[in-house]
Amino acid sequence: MGIRLGRNEYGKAEVRLVHVDRSASVHRIKDLNVSTRLRGDMEAVHTRGDNTNCLTTDTQKNTVYALAREHGVGAAEEFGLLLARHFTGEHASVHGAAVELQEFAWQRIPTSEGPHGHAFVRSGAETRTVVVTADRGGEWVVSGFEGLTVLKSADSEFRGFPRTRFTTLAETGDRILATDVTARWRYAAGWNAPGSAPEEAPEAVGWDAAYERVKGLVLEAFATTPSLALQQSLYAMGEAVLRERPDIAEIRFSMPNNHHFAVDLAPFGMDNPNVVFHAADRPYGRIEAAVERDDAPDAGPAWDSVPGFV
Amino acid sequence: MGIRLGRNEYGKAEVRLVHVDRSASVHRIKDLNVSTRLRGDMEAVHTRGDNTNCLTTDTQKNTVYALAREHGVGAAEEFGLLLARHFTGEHASVHGAAVELQEFAWQRIPTSEGPHGHAFVRSGAETRTVVVTADRGGEWVVSGFEGLTVLKSADSEFRGFPRTRFTTLAETGDRILATDVTARWRYAAGWNAPGSAPEEAPEAVGWDAAYERVKGLVLEAFATTPSLALQQSLYAMGEAVLRERPDIAEIRFSMPNNHHFAVDLAPFGMDNPNVVFHAADRPYGRIEAAVERDDAPDAGPAWDSVPGFV
Amino acid sequence: MGIRLGRNEYGKAEVRLVHVDRSASVHRIKDLNVSTRLRGDMEAVHTRGDNTNCLTTDTQKNTVYALAREHGVGAAEEFGLLLARHFTGEHASVHGAAVELQEFAWQRIPTSEGPHGHAFVRSGAETRTVVVTADRGGEWVVSGFEGLTVLKSADSEFRGFPRTRFTTLAETGDRILATDVTARWRYAAGWNAPGSAPEEAPEAVGWDAAYERVKGLVLEAFATTPSLALQQSLYAMGEAVLRERPDIAEIRFSMPNNHHFAVDLAPFGMDNPNVVFHAADRPYGRIEAAVERDDAPDAGPAWDSVPGFV
Amino acid sequence: MGIRLGRNEYGKAEVRLVHVDRSASVHRIKDLNVSTRLRGDMEAVHTRGDNTNCLTTDTQKNTVYALAREHGVGAAEEFGLLLARHFTGEHASVHGAAVELQEFAWQRIPTSEGPHGHAFVRSGAETRTVVVTADRGGEWVVSGFEGLTVLKSADSEFRGFPRTRFTTLAETGDRILATDVTARWRYAAGWNAPGSAPEEAPEAVGWDAAYERVKGLVLEAFATTPSLALQQSLYAMGEAVLRERPDIAEIRFSMPNNHHFAVDLAPFGMDNPNVVFHAADRPYGRIEAAVERDDAPDAGPAWDSVPGFV
Repeated sequence: MGIRLGRNEYGKAEVRLVHVDRSASVHRIKDLNVSTRLRGDMEAVHTRGDNTNCLTTDTQKNTVYALAREHGVGAAEEFGLLLARHFTGEHASVHGAAVELQEFAWQRIPTSEGPHGHAFVRSGAETRTVVVTADRGGEWVVSGFEGLTVLKSADSEFRGFPRTRFTTLAETGDRILATDVTARWRYAAGWNAPGSAPEEAPEAVGWDAAYERVKGLVLEAFATTPSLALQQSLYAMGEAVLRERPDIAEIRFSMPNNHHFAVDLAPFGMDNPNVVFHAADRPYGRIEAAVERDDAPDAGPAWDSVPGFV
Repeated sequence: MGIRLGRNEYGKAEVRLVHVDRSASVHRIKDLNVSTRLRGDMEAVHTRGDNTNCLTTDTQKNTVYALAREHGVGAAEEFGLLLARHFTGEHASVHGAAVELQEFAWQRIPTSEGPHGHAFVRSGAETRTVVVTADRGGEWVVSGFEGLTVLKSADSEFRGFPRTRFTTLAETGDRILATDVTARWRYAAGWNAPGSAPEEAPEAVGWDAAYERVKGLVLEAFATTPSLALQQSLYAMGEAVLRERPDIAEIRFSMPNNHHFAVDLAPFGMDNPNVVFHAADRPYGRIEAAVERDDAPDAGPAWDSVPGFV
Repeated sequence: MGIRLGRNEYGKAEVRLVHVDRSASVHRIKDLNVSTRLRGDMEAVHTRGDNTNCLTTDTQKNTVYALAREHGVGAAEEFGLLLARHFTGEHASVHGAAVELQEFAWQRIPTSEGPHGHAFVRSGAETRTVVVTADRGGEWVVSGFEGLTVLKSADSEFRGFPRTRFTTLAETGDRILATDVTARWRYAAGWNAPGSAPEEAPEAVGWDAAYERVKGLVLEAFATTPSLALQQSLYAMGEAVLRERPDIAEIRFSMPNNHHFAVDLAPFGMDNPNVVFHAADRPYGRIEAAVERDDAPDAGPAWDSVPGFV
Repeated sequence: MGIRLGRNEYGKAEVRLVHVDRSASVHRIKDLNVSTRLRGDMEAVHTRGDNTNCLTTDTQKNTVYALAREHGVGAAEEFGLLLARHFTGEHASVHGAAVELQEFAWQRIPTSEGPHGHAFVRSGAETRTVVVTADRGGEWVVSGFEGLTVLKSADSEFRGFPRTRFTTLAETGDRILATDVTARWRYAAGWNAPGSAPEEAPEAVGWDAAYERVKGLVLEAFATTPSLALQQSLYAMGEAVLRERPDIAEIRFSMPNNHHFAVDLAPFGMDNPNVVFHAADRPYGRIEAAVERDDAPDAGPAWDSVPGFV
């Protein structure tokens, strides 16, 4: 019987990078939260405190800033790939790298003379996310978003569930359905191989356009699918994305069921035909599922550094 | 020497109300977080646990839901006034009431057939706020917002400040200026007296239109005012509002200075002409100020229940 | 009619200072979050962007660190006084200063050889708070804590409250009473005048001992007072402090009523004699009150920079 | 090419349960946050909205409360096992269950007559965590804690790391080492088989005693290990636990490096021999690693529902 080091990784978390592209009089800004995670020959640092192989997290932070200056910052996916390739390519002791990015969106401030050239207001809806993983076996890109809060005030029912001795919930043909969508989708292998990319692959239309399109598909499927269960809405959202995007191998969702309870107003002599609701905090339902192609290439380590997914 | 009860108030905090107007096939939703604060003859409950005068916070919560059903929910200001008048009007032991509201904005989900009729996505930018105060002396409405995050990547400098033995900051003619604007404005007395309301008063154009206009003025002033200090931007924002809105007596701001530090890339042989920034967390500057009319009517208790203002 | 600057203040918020006293082999650490707020002749910076009088917030931050080195860091109250006196004493344009401090407590890590000399674990209960205000009229110290979470599983009832058309709450002779106590107490004027200090004043027994004693009194009063209302518990807590501490002029509390609802288990054929509870989030009751001496000296600006109090 | 459902699970998150044991005049309280996650035949609910197999999350919530009443609440591990066995044992469509628990610790309030019998104060340090997983292949228990914040003001150095073109960090023989320890340890298979349990297994000494002992070992190892790298401290902490606890198969840590930067006071003519520090927020280092026995039984799905681990 011996004791040994198991799986491990380390990095610099939450490097807050703002990049201003001032090459034209109309500025463009990118606002990112970048975290790096490296894996490799790290036995000695754990067991003996020998830092020979330990590319410091401070250096990782510097690298984020320096590469932003050297290459500019395009789509979050591109910048993540740049970083992941750098860490695995330049440091023999680093065998794998994952780069997580959050992107915060900004819009130009509207003025009486049109959108301002260098004044911005943050558009606070969802946060865009990317996790790029690279190791000797390849590269994987998982794009996504978190915090896209949606609600349907009709076309949602919930019936036909099993009744056990602990079941009190009434069936309903009309409830509010609300959730905060976290979605993560994995691009198929080959998406970044020149020549082999499908027509709709991100290179063709661009990462940013792909992002907007997936978000739009998710929103529209949520809106237009009559819902018998939140799981059904989830699956419809995933199916809508995979149907249209051959460059996406799978999409995973984590979605709370943000319960809205119709308030009992009978004690006050009032009816409540689904008009007045209490929006509850805890507990909440939580559903998580992947929708995938049956011929999807193997995910490899793509999901290893994506927190909070099944 | 004796010990006695001093100032006091109590209420139900954070009643999460969602109201669905289903009177047309296109639904309208209002999503509010309502807190009530009552003041009155509360000596006995504190000193003897005698609850005779203590309108329970549970009843206050029920009242929020019941009045929402009875009257519907219009502008947050209106609903706040409705509640405040109810508490002070119906309960002799209640001498004053303040109602705080936060409103979360939603938009219809865009679909290929246009905006959906009953599916919504939360638009996450700023949160609208209202504090209505009513007592035997009158009524006061303070509207506002919080969490409006803005940034200028040019036209901001900071110079001419005193240099003491603890000053190290360099002067700069070009820095990023960024802040999360919290603004609260007080409508002038008389705004709700029929006949006496100025033409631009909220009754005329509506609370919601007034809100959007003030927000627009604040944004535009931030964008278009070349800034020598964040205080100067603040004052310009307030002045722009007061100039155009005679129905507003004063406006107060609380604004962090969200420091963005240009990263020193010289160790890597790179320049950094204000392109790559570290967005810092703490510490941050914080400025708070009121801009007011010199003939503004007395604020009375209008600000007593507005948290976090000077 | 003119537009003008109203009340205003500015400063550096949340300077995170850790001070290590290494003068002995057993180290002592102080972990503070310091915010400064200055008031004075700040018209020009707001209206013209003229920074001549604007002691920069960066300098304020440097001052926190420099004075920590110069004088060491004793009780949070002492360090706050040091800073407030510095800002008002050294800068003619600064007429008043408030210094807010949060202190995070640490304990030595227990080892088989006793408490360790330089390894610490944070004791996560309440956070100690101090707000020191100084201007040309004097000095005020408000000490306190936040986040002291307490619960009574017996000796709490709630009855005799008014029943209106919106009242549904049942009376109860046995409920859980739970709250997160935020307390702030103001020391009486004269507390720091040599010779005039009462025997129990902070100088005599020390700020830290005074803090511990007040916290102990609050806890014991909460525990031992049979409660007919949370307000009554609050008042008893305040009274206990003022009875024993002549150096304290008043004490204010802000306390949520953290509702614990007995779960209805009847549908499962079970009783629930106050054994199984759902701890709810929102909404919650909130009570705020001051307990004071009838001969307390005037509070002056002592509470102006204390956020969130009535 | 087809589209299909991939991995999925669902449940009720954050059921806030407070259980009061009133069987003696001295009460005992358990304060838990319970989340359930079920897996099974859930194809139909996703693809067709057919809820036949979908044990509702509302029923899951009710089950938490009902079983708490039926069996009482002992150690969090025991209660988690009770729930996991219930869900997999009673519902054919449920193939696997994971139960996450957070436990918040409370202490009796000290009074002049000793610890109070039914008044408690929350001891705010770390939060205890448990994840129990059960499926047709067995049962797994992962215990742990999060938010144990520790700091060493001496005996920490960091040297010998690689210097690349992006390295600016200076080597140091004396720095503050600080982190918030999140630890999770998996008990070895067999720990709960009567007769086969090692002498020190949780059944023998109890889950609660095991928890306290592991926490104590982690703290002592952090305190007494001179640190050449945070990774080394981590490994020493894990090794200390595995050496003494044969019932534990592996332990995993996730630890930020809470950077404390010595403030440069030279501009003010002061030295700073590691006395005055700025405690930084972001970015921070983050290290994650497992320490394990080389003969540890397979982890099976033990970690599948443990969020945020490599």
